[in-house]
Amino acid sequence: MATTFHERPVFPRGFSCASKNCGIKESGKDLSVFYSETDAAAAAIFTRNQFPGAPIIVGREIIRGGVLRAIVVNSRVSNVGRGEEGIQNARRMGASAARALGVPAHHVLMSSTGVIGVPLPIDKIEAGLQDIASLLQTDPMVGAEGIMTTDTHPKAISTEIGNATITIVAKGSGMIEPNMATMLAYIFTDAQISADDLKSMLADAAHVSFNMLSIDTDTSTSDTCVIMANGVAGPVDRAAFAAALRDACVRMTEILARDGEGASKLLRVCVKGALNETEARRVAKSVVNSPLIKTMAYGADPNVGRVFMAVGKCFDCTIATEGMSATINGTTVIDCGRKADFDEAALRKSLSGDPVDFVIDLGVNDGSAIAYGCDLTEGYIEENAAYYSS
Amino acid sequence: MATTFHERPVFPRGFSCASKNCGIKESGKDLSVFYSETDAAAAAIFTRNQFPGAPIIVGREIIRGGVLRAIVVNSRVSNVGRGEEGIQNARRMGASAARALGVPAHHVLMSSTGVIGVPLPIDKIEAGLQDIASLLQTDPMVGAEGIMTTDTHPKAISTEIGNATITIVAKGSGMIEPNMATMLAYIFTDAQISADDLKSMLADAAHVSFNMLSIDTDTSTSDTCVIMANGVAGPVDRAAFAAALRDACVRMTEILARDGEGASKLLRVCVKGALNETEARRVAKSVVNSPLIKTMAYGADPNVGRVFMAVGKCFDCTIATEGMSATINGTTVIDCGRKADFDEAALRKSLSGDPVDFVIDLGVNDGSAIAYGCDLTEGYIEENAAYYSS
Repeated sequence: MATTFHERPVFPRGFSCASKNCGIKESGKDLSVFYSETDAAAAAIFTRNQFPGAPIIVGREIIRGGVLRAIVVNSRVSNVGRGEEGIQNARRMGASAARALGVPAHHVLMSSTGVIGVPLPIDKIEAGLQDIASLLQTDPMVGAEGIMTTDTHPKAISTEIGNATITIVAKGSGMIEPNMATMLAYIFTDAQISADDLKSMLADAAHVSFNMLSIDTDTSTSDTCVIMANGVAGPVDRAAFAAALRDACVRMTEILARDGEGASKLLRVCVKGALNETEARRVAKSVVNSPLIKTMAYGADPNVGRVFMAVGKCFDCTIATEGMSATINGTTVIDCGRKADFDEAALRKSLSGDPVDFVIDLGVNDGSAIAYGCDLTEGYIEENAAYYSS
Repeated sequence: MATTFHERPVFPRGFSCASKNCGIKESGKDLSVFYSETDAAAAAIFTRNQFPGAPIIVGREIIRGGVLRAIVVNSRVSNVGRGEEGIQNARRMGASAARALGVPAHHVLMSSTGVIGVPLPIDKIEAGLQDIASLLQTDPMVGAEGIMTTDTHPKAISTEIGNATITIVAKGSGMIEPNMATMLAYIFTDAQISADDLKSMLADAAHVSFNMLSIDTDTSTSDTCVIMANGVAGPVDRAAFAAALRDACVRMTEILARDGEGASKLLRVCVKGALNETEARRVAKSVVNSPLIKTMAYGADPNVGRVFMAVGKCFDCTIATEGMSATINGTTVIDCGRKADFDEAALRKSLSGDPVDFVIDLGVNDGSAIAYGCDLTEGYIEENAAYYSS
């Protein structure tokens, strides 16, 4: 990846954000807004979960206009499984943010993330938004702080492309196998790009990044990925921008995977030699999602026979059993469908590091894909056995 | 389920078994044989994993004859990912058992279960089989002892049907989401039934039992389910036998699920009101496999909003979001697509018991299915982070 990222992320010109505690969490920030000084062309992709949150239902309507001025987000409580009351609360949340920022309500997208099914504390959110304009500042990490749930750190990155900047602010560490988007990822740029172009570039970038991320196979009801382009930096080279956007989304995907609930390391599974890209994606996801691969990585246990299992359980993919080869961190562990001889002590040492890279060549054709995930540890169990109550 | 099971399992007439330590495990039994005094009609189903073990490849050939006299099984090392050497070792294992028991080699099925990829210690197995005939006895639990890997107890059940007996001996607690069979399940009966009839009855029984079991979504390379009928008890009512076989397979499925690696409780997910049975199966599997549902059950945390997520991530199934209802251990937790009001303390108490029963009504049509699984605990992580090395 040629794209380099700022050591400390910055916003593109014309964007700012604010975050605060409005009383949903006992302590810690639980409310953020992201603001554009001018109209920004915008596109978004949302979860494919069939019980989408109210903000997704309302958001699909708002994004059709192709213009956004702001995004408002609360954490700790998602707004899912609440019927008509949920829709009304999502609209109230957007309208409150619009009033506070002096922008039209139909140019504000809203998100809610946290426990599913309980009522949104809309009064606290409305009260919290009243002074939010006075808190606006230009460090994207501050906005990232207000959208965290089980994340162990706020997440933002930025990079330059020509005269323009691309910044991604995101969260997500459990209930993560996005489909058409990641948990919450907000992308800001001052490049001048139309909403239609943003839409196709965002879809392409998400296809190889957020949509290849899986922390626990559980697809959230609130996944949202939005891009806003305010045009302040003028036009940019389209291909170069698309490539930088893709690289930035991949980098953020790695950051999200590495901070998966309880995770101690990042897993990357590159599958090549597949019949086509679709099958490469399916096999890569199968390996990255296998609990037995994940625990092997956690325990640095060179039990590489599990790779046969995790590939072979893709019943409907074309697999040449005699043709498969695999490496882990560069060590050949499977060669022509047989377990290879390798230095177990050396592999154990390499597995104990971070990240762990699998490269699996199916030897069938030229389809390839990379999936991103993390190991499975006691931390995931602890965190999720009492999430609601804690 | 009307079928009742013996308090202590017994074998049908004409069957016996033996087990011993042959030196593959440091201690504990690692070798079993199951023996029929006369030719038994037989049928089997095997894993759909695309890297099947050598015993599966050879077994598919042997079962075509429709007759078996014995099954030989070793634990601790599976015979997978070893190419031609593996095939030869599987044949040697079958031939040794045949010699020891005085039966034709093509009437002996072999299984190997344990670590994938390492060579089968065939010399130890051959030496161990020499005195095996002298150890034959009629307690099926003894045979069950030799086939255990991470199982915490040997598993066998038996029931009567008319004048005949059905006995299942099985193992399996990790790498378990069988497809066309469970890890290892051997079914013995003295009823008189043809191999063709056994085949269709076994397929029907596995469809609603072993094939609806998932402990960790990982489909083993060695799954095998065999039925042998020696006919000693004469003919039986076909429908009654099929029903008893199905009930016995379901009961064994529950036993396997309850003893899932690290499990503290059995989960049963009944989905009804689906578009059809296929979709009901898919949704039931999605819920029983969701790490967030499994950890919720483990922690007895009434975070029931996760049911929306686990159902809704079945993108391709027909779901009427306003029509779904759900109960957990009889308590309504979702009503017409909204989280219901319920006594949280009471549900917490009920969730802390064993089993946990989900009933989810999709409100679409009349398709139904039940899936079987277990909770996800730190024990699963511990066990699998160092399986190879321990």
